[in-house]
Amino acid sequence: MGVVIDGCPAGVEISASDIQEALDRRRPGQSAITTPRNEADQVEILSGVFEGKSLGSPISLLIANTDQKSKDYSHIKDAYRPSHADFTYQKKYGIRDYRGGGRASARETVGRVAAGAIALKLLKTTMPLKVQAFVSSISGIQVRRSYTELDLSLTDSNIVRCPDEVIAKQMIALIEEAKSAGDSLGGIITCVVSGCEVGLGEPVFNKLEAQLAKAMLSIPAVKGFEIGSGFGGTLLKGSEHNDAFIKDGDKIGTRTNNSGGIQGGISNGMDIYFRVAFKPTATIMQKQASVNKSGEEITLEVKGRHDPCVLPRAVPIVEAMTNLVLADLYLQQKLSKI
Amino acid sequence: MGVVIDGCPAGVEISASDIQEALDRRRPGQSAITTPRNEADQVEILSGVFEGKSLGSPISLLIANTDQKSKDYSHIKDAYRPSHADFTYQKKYGIRDYRGGGRASARETVGRVAAGAIALKLLKTTMPLKVQAFVSSISGIQVRRSYTELDLSLTDSNIVRCPDEVIAKQMIALIEEAKSAGDSLGGIITCVVSGCEVGLGEPVFNKLEAQLAKAMLSIPAVKGFEIGSGFGGTLLKGSEHNDAFIKDGDKIGTRTNNSGGIQGGISNGMDIYFRVAFKPTATIMQKQASVNKSGEEITLEVKGRHDPCVLPRAVPIVEAMTNLVLADLYLQQKLSKI
Amino acid sequence: MGVVIDGCPAGVEISASDIQEALDRRRPGQSAITTPRNEADQVEILSGVFEGKSLGSPISLLIANTDQKSKDYSHIKDAYRPSHADFTYQKKYGIRDYRGGGRASARETVGRVAAGAIALKLLKTTMPLKVQAFVSSISGIQVRRSYTELDLSLTDSNIVRCPDEVIAKQMIALIEEAKSAGDSLGGIITCVVSGCEVGLGEPVFNKLEAQLAKAMLSIPAVKGFEIGSGFGGTLLKGSEHNDAFIKDGDKIGTRTNNSGGIQGGISNGMDIYFRVAFKPTATIMQKQASVNKSGEEITLEVKGRHDPCVLPRAVPIVEAMTNLVLADLYLQQKLSKI
Amino acid sequence: MGVVIDGCPAGVEISASDIQEALDRRRPGQSAITTPRNEADQVEILSGVFEGKSLGSPISLLIANTDQKSKDYSHIKDAYRPSHADFTYQKKYGIRDYRGGGRASARETVGRVAAGAIALKLLKTTMPLKVQAFVSSISGIQVRRSYTELDLSLTDSNIVRCPDEVIAKQMIALIEEAKSAGDSLGGIITCVVSGCEVGLGEPVFNKLEAQLAKAMLSIPAVKGFEIGSGFGGTLLKGSEHNDAFIKDGDKIGTRTNNSGGIQGGISNGMDIYFRVAFKPTATIMQKQASVNKSGEEITLEVKGRHDPCVLPRAVPIVEAMTNLVLADLYLQQKLSKI
Repeated sequence: MGVVIDGCPAGVEISASDIQEALDRRRPGQSAITTPRNEADQVEILSGVFEGKSLGSPISLLIANTDQKSKDYSHIKDAYRPSHADFTYQKKYGIRDYRGGGRASARETVGRVAAGAIALKLLKTTMPLKVQAFVSSISGIQVRRSYTELDLSLTDSNIVRCPDEVIAKQMIALIEEAKSAGDSLGGIITCVVSGCEVGLGEPVFNKLEAQLAKAMLSIPAVKGFEIGSGFGGTLLKGSEHNDAFIKDGDKIGTRTNNSGGIQGGISNGMDIYFRVAFKPTATIMQKQASVNKSGEEITLEVKGRHDPCVLPRAVPIVEAMTNLVLADLYLQQKLSKI
Repeated sequence: MGVVIDGCPAGVEISASDIQEALDRRRPGQSAITTPRNEADQVEILSGVFEGKSLGSPISLLIANTDQKSKDYSHIKDAYRPSHADFTYQKKYGIRDYRGGGRASARETVGRVAAGAIALKLLKTTMPLKVQAFVSSISGIQVRRSYTELDLSLTDSNIVRCPDEVIAKQMIALIEEAKSAGDSLGGIITCVVSGCEVGLGEPVFNKLEAQLAKAMLSIPAVKGFEIGSGFGGTLLKGSEHNDAFIKDGDKIGTRTNNSGGIQGGISNGMDIYFRVAFKPTATIMQKQASVNKSGEEITLEVKGRHDPCVLPRAVPIVEAMTNLVLADLYLQQKLSKI
Repeated sequence: MGVVIDGCPAGVEISASDIQEALDRRRPGQSAITTPRNEADQVEILSGVFEGKSLGSPISLLIANTDQKSKDYSHIKDAYRPSHADFTYQKKYGIRDYRGGGRASARETVGRVAAGAIALKLLKTTMPLKVQAFVSSISGIQVRRSYTELDLSLTDSNIVRCPDEVIAKQMIALIEEAKSAGDSLGGIITCVVSGCEVGLGEPVFNKLEAQLAKAMLSIPAVKGFEIGSGFGGTLLKGSEHNDAFIKDGDKIGTRTNNSGGIQGGISNGMDIYFRVAFKPTATIMQKQASVNKSGEEITLEVKGRHDPCVLPRAVPIVEAMTNLVLADLYLQQKLSKI
Repeated sequence: MGVVIDGCPAGVEISASDIQEALDRRRPGQSAITTPRNEADQVEILSGVFEGKSLGSPISLLIANTDQKSKDYSHIKDAYRPSHADFTYQKKYGIRDYRGGGRASARETVGRVAAGAIALKLLKTTMPLKVQAFVSSISGIQVRRSYTELDLSLTDSNIVRCPDEVIAKQMIALIEEAKSAGDSLGGIITCVVSGCEVGLGEPVFNKLEAQLAKAMLSIPAVKGFEIGSGFGGTLLKGSEHNDAFIKDGDKIGTRTNNSGGIQGGISNGMDIYFRVAFKPTATIMQKQASVNKSGEEITLEVKGRHDPCVLPRAVPIVEAMTNLVLADLYLQQKLSKI
């Protein structure tokens, strides 16, 4: 896999290990509840970094595939797998590379995670930023406490990446059960950004929440996004929902944070938090009815090694996309006033 | 208000009345549950259209403001209204036009609606497209039936724009109550796109659902977006959620539509449907605590005429943004293969 | 005419008179050797500026047309005027607004000049920049001295805008002669930028000279561009052409400046200078052979009031486009390092 | 070297040999008058092409460096080479990779040539296009005949790539002489495009000639561009310069072609032709005065293997950039009308 990151200013300290750390949290084969396909996802910086610092030129990375068995694709060559992109790609492009890979494969997210690690390095040059995502729900088993009551540093202490240990165990059990049944599960990831400066986001079309929503819905399998009070906030009255401004030392803050850290599309310095819904993985180890390119009805049985639930590995992807959105708006912010 | 629409191909039939029809559904003062501020929002086409057809050059429109009383803004000149953009704009730009208007005012959505009407004309030149939004929930009072069981042609038969007459009455009563109390309400708008051709949407970052999510979250007061099975879909197993392909005459369709008409980021020809959460209007007719530019605590009482609930007027905005996303991807689609 | 300028940071001091001053140098009817069509080209700022400063939002301007006689266009409705855009627009768009105006009319350059005035205000907030263009050749009558030997403050002291008084008189006589004959003339404009900081321009595709070349060739009637040593520099050997670096006080400069102030696509702090070739105006007051939309051969006689030579009025256009390129790269430069 | 080409539609037939053919004309070491550094510049297609056709996804290529001796860069580590980008890069980015390569190295043009070969394949799917560049002048030794009187198929019959055999020999002798003296030469490349359809180019800022000018001035060492009548056209009167439309069978053409195949920024179906001025190579094998990073005056002697004249190898670069501009505008043209 090649990854090219353009737009990183010169002078940012970047090492392969910064990127590797993020990739290791996404890589396949990391635990009993992810795909058994084992990829080291070892990153190599090919260009754009010199003596440990970005040069201002595009940064290109190489992440080698190691666990690539020469597979037999004949059973899916002409088949349209349910809830995959086979059909739409075929119709849109008139041609399709059926041999895994391609831009519809979730393998492309390795590039997002690598780029996100660099974006974070840039942001941290001036901000005390923390971007922390965690699994808050698996198939209805959910963390009931607010993120403010959780110790987010515990997220990686278990394989499902849920900082509530009790809930985490239930989640893991549920995923193991689905795995045994050759089935898959969905769930929700919550992401919290603290330490973001005031002013990120552009009015009208490029609001911070709009860019975050786009970034999240661009992740494979995502079906929903809500920020701050979200869908639940539709039950409140304005007098309950409004966030009163208060003096917070020599800063201005808000008493509540239903806004989710964004007002008028621009960060206000409070925590930015949002939730992202993932559907159950489309690839399951069961027979399914479908049709093929000729329109004939077929029964499809997908082989291979797949995640029964993508959420644990999607945590670093959600963080990476958040980093990328923030870095983009951080650079734009530099141009907002003289 | 001036509106400039760039990128419309030549040859699309466009008349002021097409645009006016859309604007009339958004305009203030249209019913007892919207702001009493009365604006005709009369549109005039200044350029880009010749003998009833687009020229391929930017289309510029003028929508005059008529009901502009010379107001006294002294009470909000230095105040930060809760859950408004006053504070973030001041910090981001170092300067702020406090006299209403500006890009943080929902008045800017008049441009979106006008542009959306033109986008729809373009799309209809080759597709039997229908884009229909309706209010599906107000402060928890919600339509329980699926959109497939509703007659969406009834949406405009009542002032809250809910095609379920019984629910609509309850919604209207609730809004009137909030209005009397000087308070405001939020809710949910559902949008359904039928007749969209296969192939709209770009892989990876510009997926159709990603662009829709961005478009919706860019609308003032929106806090959430879900497409297809959405957040509810996280409760299903893969074997329940997957949409089996079937032959549908000489087309290929899917038996269920949890995907919401999109697979791999690309439209598959089935209905595209999604839900959009709106927070309660930030402007309320009650005293609120806040701070001013100098950081002093103040009590703020906003005067003026405002919507106790934006959803009825937001229906054409959601439709317009959908039209704009589809038109953009429709044009990109023309470049996807030779 | 409406003009919208997006991307100007907040806080730049902008007044209508700054813009008007530039427009007055471009306006028709300003002297005996320009078109007698008289337009005040009075500018009004509609939005984006508040209390004398830019708000960071799009700046929209209105420049009213006053001298618009209701003309008879029947003679050119279906005719393709030689060396005009009638034929290509008709073929490209399938529809064409033949009533003057449109994007192929040089009247669009009023927007460039207005935007350029704002770009200059932005640049001057941090740089002691001077952008000075002048007419250096009309139909072969040319200034022989280098720009460094001229007093560029004399440029506007005559109606042809050539700082060499003797040459200016010859140029004016030549233009008057062409005007009497119903013919037109071309020529060359030289532009000199002094006081530009080091670092403007992006490697590879968006080099400063590439952006300048694009900007100049986008001006109606321009057929050539050369920077620094230009076409003449092809006659030198490398040992003659190379600009040796020298210490210039505590700065680094170059002994010669064949590079024209740009190395590797990036400004080096020396003067940037370039020459722009304008063809003779296509509209002449003589009978011409042509064809019409139906492909029939016709004889065409264009009526109306036109410039026998566009160069005097093109001087502020060249300056404006230079300002716009520099402002764009100046903003990009802010993102080049942390 | 990695090259990524985005935006190529699916279905274009692309093979490594198409690209290799173009690269072979650019590669170092191809003749006695180019640099003796020998690079095979062998291309490998890594992604984006499947079964001989483009997939619509980014096409990535790898071109390996073979002749990379581990060099000693200590003499240029802190030195600013005259008329190179060392100084401007250092100032712009605050960091610089002095070890050759980088974006200021003409080695980056290998990517342009590879991408141009793909652009040409796209264009040829619907147009009988020919893009032919040749060396028309070396240090004043120039082809006197118009391109229409030359047999452009002879361009590659000699090592200087000039289709006029007599002039070619003089050019070669001149280059050999400069090479012996450790000096370098500049010159002019003429490029002719025939068979281009009507309609390529966008009004106002993205005119075809503006995009060509930008593309050409982005090539390292280019100092000038002129199209059609160019600088010479400034000597003509309008009545002489205008290109009368004529019927040409069932097409419409022009009697003369001073416009250079473009009117109103849009191709008119006639030949597009332009000239590009290249300065003499900055790297010469002679001692030169300069300064270093600390501002100290130094004497610099560059070692290595360099082209005494880049023009023969720049011919395929000019063609490639032309292909890229045309392909870009060809795709845009698809969106100009319904």
